[in-house]
Amino acid sequence: MLARSIRAFSSSSSSKPNVAVILSGCGVYDGTEVTEGVSTLIHLSSANALFTCYAPDKDQMHAVDHTCGEEHAATRNVLVESARIARGVVSPLASLDASKYSALVIPGGFGAAKNLSSFAVDGPDMTVDPDLAKVIKGFRSENKPIGMCCIAPTIAAKMIPNAKLTVGQSSGPEEMWPHSGAAGSCEAMGATHVDTEIDGVCIDSDNKLVTSAAYMKNASPSEVHESVGLMVKQVLKMI
Amino acid sequence: MLARSIRAFSSSSSSKPNVAVILSGCGVYDGTEVTEGVSTLIHLSSANALFTCYAPDKDQMHAVDHTCGEEHAATRNVLVESARIARGVVSPLASLDASKYSALVIPGGFGAAKNLSSFAVDGPDMTVDPDLAKVIKGFRSENKPIGMCCIAPTIAAKMIPNAKLTVGQSSGPEEMWPHSGAAGSCEAMGATHVDTEIDGVCIDSDNKLVTSAAYMKNASPSEVHESVGLMVKQVLKMI
Repeated sequence: MLARSIRAFSSSSSSKPNVAVILSGCGVYDGTEVTEGVSTLIHLSSANALFTCYAPDKDQMHAVDHTCGEEHAATRNVLVESARIARGVVSPLASLDASKYSALVIPGGFGAAKNLSSFAVDGPDMTVDPDLAKVIKGFRSENKPIGMCCIAPTIAAKMIPNAKLTVGQSSGPEEMWPHSGAAGSCEAMGATHVDTEIDGVCIDSDNKLVTSAAYMKNASPSEVHESVGLMVKQVLKMI
Repeated sequence: MLARSIRAFSSSSSSKPNVAVILSGCGVYDGTEVTEGVSTLIHLSSANALFTCYAPDKDQMHAVDHTCGEEHAATRNVLVESARIARGVVSPLASLDASKYSALVIPGGFGAAKNLSSFAVDGPDMTVDPDLAKVIKGFRSENKPIGMCCIAPTIAAKMIPNAKLTVGQSSGPEEMWPHSGAAGSCEAMGATHVDTEIDGVCIDSDNKLVTSAAYMKNASPSEVHESVGLMVKQVLKMI
């Protein structure tokens, strides 16, 4: 708990894969879903990959009391809150240079739909944070793999022409797949949505895009951990 | 990310082990260390155990900007911030009834030393949150297992006579074990400290106490995940 930071996993003097991870706050309702963020870092380090965390240095859309869903009086900064997951070590998204990394991973949580894009408000008419748009174009133009889970793939639907991706199931029992409508929104943005269960992963080899459902399903923490792991594993395989 | 809560893992109409987890905020420097909190829930659900999260409904000692270590102007509520890890589902610590659970787990982070106790300020002269003291006495009097990791075992050193426990290494390179002095503090409170590496676990069968080092070492996220897993596994075995 007390050690000052995540041990230097971002050295570039190595042949290990070096992955940029974009966080969007700390907490499912206004930031990065915490289990998805943590699981991303666990699986990357377990696979002996280096990683560096980034987040936009700007106000969150809002800050939410997670016990009741009401807004806190003051908002919070996306990067500052992301540092809770990253143990202090997080860089401004504006400084992310795709040429320095072998892959990009973006975990989910409402932060992806509120702080990285406006999907939570605008649906298929969403806009994407300009720094993030530049980053995704950078990874695409260098043909480097991108992994996303949960609601984050909506950003790929907007940014990557003809993307094949998943946000879980496009229909299904409300109590298990409460946000299945997101699949239709991805299609409305031009993507092909592939229904995928919690133990599956969607691979778009043409666009080097890997997506998995994670907490789009009302799953258990261990199921989500595994879902994130499948995505990370396939991303690393594509490098 | 979006599903409303952690799926109902707290049903009591089951023969599955039912574990109470005590959180102390959300973030290593003022709350529960995020990886340790998440890993606890992943390992419990992976082992098919039920769990319920609790936290003290009170102000944090302070709220820390994790990018720089400075204090935020306003403090935050321990339970409200803990809900970020627990996806909204967290109960007041004052309502925790040991008779309803088969075991107790307390992950680390400065929250354990600032909000659950005063160890961060007072060292061996620390006091323990009165609700937590009652809870620990309850689990001890029913002879039910208690698991702790990282700095949380200092609370056991204070509360459980003749406890045998670990907070990692009692000495060692500063960059790997930056808080090795905590071991001596545990001894000063009457405990026996057992030096334990990141891949080990300390088992006190007499007191049904299981402890592991986790982020007391400047370890990787996957090493910490495994360290928490060793602790959770032994706790479940003791039920």
